[in-house]
Amino acid sequence: MHPPSIQKLIDLFSKFPTVGPRTASRFVFYLLGKSKEEVDKLVVAILDLKKNVKLCKLCFNPFEPSFVKPSGGKGEGELCEICSNPARDKSLLCIIEKETDLLVIEKTKKYKGLYFILGGTVSRLKKADIEKLRTKELEERVKNHPEIKEIIIATNPTTEGEATTLYLERLLKPLNIKITRLGRGLPVGGELEYADEETLGSALEGRK
Amino acid sequence: MHPPSIQKLIDLFSKFPTVGPRTASRFVFYLLGKSKEEVDKLVVAILDLKKNVKLCKLCFNPFEPSFVKPSGGKGEGELCEICSNPARDKSLLCIIEKETDLLVIEKTKKYKGLYFILGGTVSRLKKADIEKLRTKELEERVKNHPEIKEIIIATNPTTEGEATTLYLERLLKPLNIKITRLGRGLPVGGELEYADEETLGSALEGRK
Amino acid sequence: MHPPSIQKLIDLFSKFPTVGPRTASRFVFYLLGKSKEEVDKLVVAILDLKKNVKLCKLCFNPFEPSFVKPSGGKGEGELCEICSNPARDKSLLCIIEKETDLLVIEKTKKYKGLYFILGGTVSRLKKADIEKLRTKELEERVKNHPEIKEIIIATNPTTEGEATTLYLERLLKPLNIKITRLGRGLPVGGELEYADEETLGSALEGRK
Amino acid sequence: MHPPSIQKLIDLFSKFPTVGPRTASRFVFYLLGKSKEEVDKLVVAILDLKKNVKLCKLCFNPFEPSFVKPSGGKGEGELCEICSNPARDKSLLCIIEKETDLLVIEKTKKYKGLYFILGGTVSRLKKADIEKLRTKELEERVKNHPEIKEIIIATNPTTEGEATTLYLERLLKPLNIKITRLGRGLPVGGELEYADEETLGSALEGRK
Repeated sequence: MHPPSIQKLIDLFSKFPTVGPRTASRFVFYLLGKSKEEVDKLVVAILDLKKNVKLCKLCFNPFEPSFVKPSGGKGEGELCEICSNPARDKSLLCIIEKETDLLVIEKTKKYKGLYFILGGTVSRLKKADIEKLRTKELEERVKNHPEIKEIIIATNPTTEGEATTLYLERLLKPLNIKITRLGRGLPVGGELEYADEETLGSALEGRK
Repeated sequence: MHPPSIQKLIDLFSKFPTVGPRTASRFVFYLLGKSKEEVDKLVVAILDLKKNVKLCKLCFNPFEPSFVKPSGGKGEGELCEICSNPARDKSLLCIIEKETDLLVIEKTKKYKGLYFILGGTVSRLKKADIEKLRTKELEERVKNHPEIKEIIIATNPTTEGEATTLYLERLLKPLNIKITRLGRGLPVGGELEYADEETLGSALEGRK
Repeated sequence: MHPPSIQKLIDLFSKFPTVGPRTASRFVFYLLGKSKEEVDKLVVAILDLKKNVKLCKLCFNPFEPSFVKPSGGKGEGELCEICSNPARDKSLLCIIEKETDLLVIEKTKKYKGLYFILGGTVSRLKKADIEKLRTKELEERVKNHPEIKEIIIATNPTTEGEATTLYLERLLKPLNIKITRLGRGLPVGGELEYADEETLGSALEGRK
Repeated sequence: MHPPSIQKLIDLFSKFPTVGPRTASRFVFYLLGKSKEEVDKLVVAILDLKKNVKLCKLCFNPFEPSFVKPSGGKGEGELCEICSNPARDKSLLCIIEKETDLLVIEKTKKYKGLYFILGGTVSRLKKADIEKLRTKELEERVKNHPEIKEIIIATNPTTEGEATTLYLERLLKPLNIKITRLGRGLPVGGELEYADEETLGSALEGRK
């Protein structure tokens, strides 16, 4: 129904997270209404993203080397701002699913340790699924950094997150490091009446 | 617009929790469609409720005296099944806003202490508002039961619940008993990405 | 879990339209918190409803005989305010599913004819289902009132409403009276982008 | 907080319709996870869109000249598939807000006329707002095509769409062509009980 150049871009935008064909077509009509200059600006920004942004060698957080303060230390140019910050507590490692989870934890200002971005979660403990995660990189990270004293597995408390946590606990157990999980309980604004039994049970046990 | 007998009942149903005039009128049309016998059954059930159900003298939980197992103990006929159960841990007192909160906590099977139903929350610490709560009854309960070693304030973690907790902590502090609150954290099924900073901060601090 | 007098009333309230067990239990706790006088007021209002309100012999609209202006005409005391109003256009008959539909049509002030409340819709044209509707009463009404020149079938444009309309059209066809349906189209506030094809097709055909 | 190359692209994606900063950042992390080849494919598709797609000279519908069947007629290469299709009814002109509205109307298969894409709606009849619409192009289109016998104003029945319709009616009135609007009424799946008075009034008046 759409001309091919429109359909092709709709198909590509439809693969973006949260985007379906209807939204994708709105994106295309939006771009059609923009001037050549504005569209070129977008294209340049996309190309710059791939050119300028690297993944941190330690935590896999995307960063822009030229904008990280020179640390003079080891790994300069290969480590993100957090990993190259001498003030961070290197004995704590927090494993998270994705980049945005790092951002929300940083916003709490309650965590001073380092991170490891796993790159997803698994719903089943199938080999093919697990290989999409950075589990080998995680093992290596922990083995090569004996200063790590506690690993916080901060996956989402969803079914997938729980399955992934179980897998990681099994993977990391032989390394004999303290492993913790985020506390369960009632969130701000929550109500007992609508809480599930497990959450409420954790809230009772975790009272203080 | 409605005949007076219909309008009057719509007005009364509209005062029920969660019911607006539209739903109230559906209730009335529902009753109009029922036989005399069925409506009488409802009327009898409402009258029986008021006749048969008492509030427990200790925790203010509604109960039906003739259906509580005879305990042979003190307060028989005046105490609900929980308060008259010798197996419950009398050193723990959990303060909750309302009856349904008691039910959800019981469902977790993680709590073996006793309860106190406060009868609501306050949004402002005005005298007029606070007097609607059972604060005097609470003080008396705690003073008369020196076996209480820990008071768990289990109001909802909402703005109103928090204000009420602050008030209760101030009220109970002079009695020198350990006071705790439900643990905060991510609920089952929650996602870090959408958690507020306070909840996530509590989840980090409460890790285990 | 609940005492029997509470559970019994929860069960009865759970049968009310839109009410589930959770809401029903909130209703019961609400009544438990009310004084004897207030609960008696509710009981009296329910009993009065059944005593004072009759269904109109013609349209089955509930009405309160003592509050309909005396018309001096035929059927006094048996007809609702609309059916006994000499100013209404008796050549128009609008068939609706339920009482509230009559109220919303009256509010438009665009309709001056009479009504017939069918008492529901059917999802399948099974005999058992159809017998729950007032189809016999409808046939009689139309046959006994040769002044009716147009029958507007105003069931909801839902699957059930459509099935019922098909049935009524077949039922009324032999009587040789003009039968119409409500116009289809975009509602106020609607958007073409989210309209289904049938609605949009009707809106195009019904343009003016 | 984000490195500049990430922030810049987040800002650009945030301007896309329906996209906020949170979704925009998910888009960027999605692209960071893609290979160079895949990102290049997207860039090429965006550049191709601007290179290959033209706006139709008559209706402003985007089309791809090389994919419109040669008509041999006037305006070849400048007209979209619909405008250059000799089978379409040139006496009917349907004014719509945006491209997707054309697509949904085509899907109904109930309309065989031509279109004009206005390019938006106005909430106030301010000159600055109106000049963003293609009103001059519309006037010219109608004046230069005396074969047009009916103009269907098919803006959304929202407040903005209504204001725009009023403006267009005033603009086109002097040209002395029949002007119609889409029919109002209940949409498929709608319910009388929740319909506003205007919609229900239109549905009654438009009965058939």
